[in-house]
Amino acid sequence: MIEPRIVGDWGSTRLRLWRLEEGQVTDRREGPGVIGLQLAPADVLLDAIASWRADGARRVTLCGMAGARGGLYEAGYAPCPLDAPQWAERTAAFALDGLAVRIAAGCAHDRGGGFRDLMRGEETQLFGAMALNPALTVGRHLLILPGTHSKWAVVDNGRIASFRSFLTGELFARLRGSSLLPEPASAPGGEEAAFAAGVEAARDGGLLGNLFLTRSAQVDAGESPEWASTFLSGLLIGSECVEMTGTAPPAALVRIIGAPGLAEHYAAALARFGAGTERLDADACTLAGLRMIDAYD
Amino acid sequence: MIEPRIVGDWGSTRLRLWRLEEGQVTDRREGPGVIGLQLAPADVLLDAIASWRADGARRVTLCGMAGARGGLYEAGYAPCPLDAPQWAERTAAFALDGLAVRIAAGCAHDRGGGFRDLMRGEETQLFGAMALNPALTVGRHLLILPGTHSKWAVVDNGRIASFRSFLTGELFARLRGSSLLPEPASAPGGEEAAFAAGVEAARDGGLLGNLFLTRSAQVDAGESPEWASTFLSGLLIGSECVEMTGTAPPAALVRIIGAPGLAEHYAAALARFGAGTERLDADACTLAGLRMIDAYD
Repeated sequence: MIEPRIVGDWGSTRLRLWRLEEGQVTDRREGPGVIGLQLAPADVLLDAIASWRADGARRVTLCGMAGARGGLYEAGYAPCPLDAPQWAERTAAFALDGLAVRIAAGCAHDRGGGFRDLMRGEETQLFGAMALNPALTVGRHLLILPGTHSKWAVVDNGRIASFRSFLTGELFARLRGSSLLPEPASAPGGEEAAFAAGVEAARDGGLLGNLFLTRSAQVDAGESPEWASTFLSGLLIGSECVEMTGTAPPAALVRIIGAPGLAEHYAAALARFGAGTERLDADACTLAGLRMIDAYD
Repeated sequence: MIEPRIVGDWGSTRLRLWRLEEGQVTDRREGPGVIGLQLAPADVLLDAIASWRADGARRVTLCGMAGARGGLYEAGYAPCPLDAPQWAERTAAFALDGLAVRIAAGCAHDRGGGFRDLMRGEETQLFGAMALNPALTVGRHLLILPGTHSKWAVVDNGRIASFRSFLTGELFARLRGSSLLPEPASAPGGEEAAFAAGVEAARDGGLLGNLFLTRSAQVDAGESPEWASTFLSGLLIGSECVEMTGTAPPAALVRIIGAPGLAEHYAAALARFGAGTERLDADACTLAGLRMIDAYD
């Protein structure tokens, strides 16, 4: 019998763990994110997997902020262009209380001017997506991983060729309670018109100026805070699209790896730019990527 | 003897009042802004000017958020293009406990798509600037009024022709305590290199993506939170310049009406875009504009 394995995605706000037996998920568990832990990360992890260890699991493979400085164990960043073997080679491995722990390397892209763009966790989803969809390993493809720090990645013949991070999700959260969203508004809902108005306002670029419209439409045209929240969501996602594509549609089908609600918003915005989209299951991509690191010796 | 007059600028965060005698400032007073008052605005005002009233003042002229809905008395917005007589005509006047109170109208600019841009207070500074600098009433001029909601205004032969608002100052404040500025950082100082790096990063547009560099430079290159704060200031002010001017310098001298420290940052950023700047005294402009409304019958 192959011994059970533990794989997990430990991000800023959430720890998700899966127990695998002969490659199949037999159990799952959640825990707190790496940011703001009260206990040492090692103790949090050991506590979360105690019963699985009692059951024979001896190996843990993680991706995400677990590998950041101040996380569980620093794993470094592998530079683009990056293929799967190069990435696996950079995995950090260490022993923890008798466990063999591996942490996936993040990925860095040189932006010029002395700046590098960074990802931790999304590279695992990208390699997982390629493993699950071999067509993605031939030719050039654009994938979007929306979230707090949304990423647009180009994969080219199986390699992560380049990517760019956007502060979209964090900025949306930070603007709550501001002059734009005076009341903490609920998450943007299905008010298609307000979302579309935000995307359209983004079309000419100029985010700093367009942000003010969120406020002036409330002061001047009596729009509600709920309208403003949805408009702002459209404006930010639309601005991200403009920054990456201008107002012209991306050349080919865009793949979106993300939570269903957020992926739907991105698909709606990209449709207004004339782009076709396909959604990939984020958890499946994460698991497939983790299996690659887990299998590496 | 001409009776003493009271003029004031009542903004979101601050009330500033001046007592004028034969046009000269003889006293000044400060109070809380319109936002978050515990008492009714009328009571706050009457309390602040009690001793001046006892001294014979019977007339109060205000600009700014005092004229907003929920302020002291709603004063409306006059649309661009707008000249001084049209503006004065739209002044709101009402009686308050035996005082004759006037509140300057704000100014609105049609942005298209059903949106209007708005200002309250800056129009008073712009008309004041033209009163103090008659050269500004001939031909076309660009003026910047930096602040929480920074404004770039075009005046054309004595009229406010158009303007645009930017969320620059508010966004800077809102990003404190975020993943970009993990510690509440002090106001950006004179670290010229960090500020210049921010302005240069803004040059290619793409604010959402460039914001992430504030974070990645700390994670990846070990830059300090203080560096990040100054870089972010340069990035935001630079982005504002790019949105208004692209990467080409504005045609002529740009006038800046603002607090000295902030005006200096804008001058430094604009210099990197090849623009010459001249600074106008903000208080003098406010007072000159208020005198115009005060003199209107």
